[in-house]
Amino acid sequence: MTQKFDVSVKVPSGKLDEEIWDKLNLKTKPPGSLGRLEHLSHQIARVQGTLTPNLTDPVVLVFAGDHGIAKSGLVNPYPQEVTHQMVLNFLSGGAAINAMTNVAGMKVIVIDAGVNHTFKSELNLIDAKVDFGTADYRSEPAMKIETCHLAMQKGADVVTGIASKGTNVIGFGEMGISNTSSASLIMSTLCNISLEECVGKGTGATGDLLDQKLNTLLEVQKFHGLTSKDTPDLILATFGGFEIAEMVGGMIEAAYRKCIVLVDGFISTAAYLIAHSMMPAIKEYAVFTHKSEELGHTKLLAYLDAEPLLLLQMRLGEGTGCAASYPILEMAVSVINNMASFDSAGVSSKIN
Amino acid sequence: MTQKFDVSVKVPSGKLDEEIWDKLNLKTKPPGSLGRLEHLSHQIARVQGTLTPNLTDPVVLVFAGDHGIAKSGLVNPYPQEVTHQMVLNFLSGGAAINAMTNVAGMKVIVIDAGVNHTFKSELNLIDAKVDFGTADYRSEPAMKIETCHLAMQKGADVVTGIASKGTNVIGFGEMGISNTSSASLIMSTLCNISLEECVGKGTGATGDLLDQKLNTLLEVQKFHGLTSKDTPDLILATFGGFEIAEMVGGMIEAAYRKCIVLVDGFISTAAYLIAHSMMPAIKEYAVFTHKSEELGHTKLLAYLDAEPLLLLQMRLGEGTGCAASYPILEMAVSVINNMASFDSAGVSSKIN
Repeated sequence: MTQKFDVSVKVPSGKLDEEIWDKLNLKTKPPGSLGRLEHLSHQIARVQGTLTPNLTDPVVLVFAGDHGIAKSGLVNPYPQEVTHQMVLNFLSGGAAINAMTNVAGMKVIVIDAGVNHTFKSELNLIDAKVDFGTADYRSEPAMKIETCHLAMQKGADVVTGIASKGTNVIGFGEMGISNTSSASLIMSTLCNISLEECVGKGTGATGDLLDQKLNTLLEVQKFHGLTSKDTPDLILATFGGFEIAEMVGGMIEAAYRKCIVLVDGFISTAAYLIAHSMMPAIKEYAVFTHKSEELGHTKLLAYLDAEPLLLLQMRLGEGTGCAASYPILEMAVSVINNMASFDSAGVSSKIN
Repeated sequence: MTQKFDVSVKVPSGKLDEEIWDKLNLKTKPPGSLGRLEHLSHQIARVQGTLTPNLTDPVVLVFAGDHGIAKSGLVNPYPQEVTHQMVLNFLSGGAAINAMTNVAGMKVIVIDAGVNHTFKSELNLIDAKVDFGTADYRSEPAMKIETCHLAMQKGADVVTGIASKGTNVIGFGEMGISNTSSASLIMSTLCNISLEECVGKGTGATGDLLDQKLNTLLEVQKFHGLTSKDTPDLILATFGGFEIAEMVGGMIEAAYRKCIVLVDGFISTAAYLIAHSMMPAIKEYAVFTHKSEELGHTKLLAYLDAEPLLLLQMRLGEGTGCAASYPILEMAVSVINNMASFDSAGVSSKIN
């Protein structure tokens, strides 16, 4: 996979770092008084290597895929069909991500990474289907390692297509019934954190169903016997899903192309975890848009030393955190570009 | 003052409460999975008494006023002139609030509540000037009680003018060198919390200056001898400033007119504290937009049992928290109005 993916992306050059801070500190406000907004201004300027950054054609990619385990009903309160039904909902503009991106001024692009459904060809959907859902990881890996690499490449290709048209900020959202289970298994194995701390209610598994979800995943983890010493792509292949693998490839490609990578909630962060373990420099490009209510997310963000922008108790996925936080990124860019300096505005500076 | 202000605003009718939640719960997402966004949807719908709320002509009001204490330099690292200089900066579009409201789609309206400067009449500024700055509260109350009532009435009149043109969501921002000192004195006295826990660095008082700020305010508090048993308007009159008093009147009027009241940072929340102590029902109308880095704000929000939307480590005032959070309110409204229901989108509901 390292042959296929250029994971050698460097940390952005630091030569402008001081100039960016100097510019921000001369703006008409006490230095640092815009807090994280200023750090965002700095990050975006740094990634773009300019004192006048801009954000162009922002998109949220919603990668959709199905999971073999979902058919069992052991881990999910909603049936597998909801994945393709929600894809149709995204395409007709009725989902939360549509309602929110309409406000944020972002475009939603839906990708069939591996939904167990044949979509009509006239739909405005990117076909990056690997297969009609993953295998059931109770008895075999969710996908073969070669298939995992293929999925990552498909995700990278999606990003290539979008970035080459001018987009430089990409939200990574997803849809896939049972995919909190994949994310939990990936997190637990790669971070060496017990599954009990990684498994939450997902779309709404509570009570007995939550116990059953945890017990099922404990058996799955034991069956495969992977540890944090195994390679991230093997862990990804074993626990799936296609949408997560495509997000991994897409995130790496986005960083390679100097795009800002907007990481959404638990599943998106699990994809980022894999990407980060392959290419640590991706962190420079990533904005952690929110902290989800999904149980494992707080610990996963802490493991990654990642500070989320928003804490709105959301736990929906779809890229909704990316949409919710995007206006704040736009404000960060507006601050560095459009605010007056003390000199230009004729405002006195400190006396003490 | 209760003769002048109708503080009898009732809690909005709860008769739609259940219907609003029912509508939200039928949207294509697991119930509650949009967290605080759904609570915002509910609050806005409730305030407006409708299942299809809307936000119209959003504004941020920036009330500006000067403080007698500022001339002493005992509490402020920036000179008093910065207040009027920043007013000119707001009017020419160079301040943080301009850069941020441009993204949020809000209008900035600047109010001269009592700046120590004569502005040219051709400027696009609302003249609600009470005086050229308050008195120095080291030796006398910042203003007389009658003047305080006048300032509150002027603030209410500003809101009346704006709301009558169709605005139904109003951010309350401010500018006034030394006004964190007023806010600290108000908070400490009204909440009965020691000044040490209420006094922070403001625009940037650190080290010796911060000690001097605290010691000065401790003397001021002792000199006036007010306690939480005194009336809120007397506390407000004693510690000022005009911009805070106008915000208090404006907030009360806004709630009376069923507008959403966006509370900004420390000073805006101190104004809200006074308004709330006069009219507890204002809480139903208020959105606490962010938690500021200013020392006292965390405790003040806790005292008010208020949950801020954003934690971005900002401490600038001007209404910047209102601007930063406004798109999230718009998203909340879009969610309740524009999302499909499970039925209409043909999405299966829970199996477990």
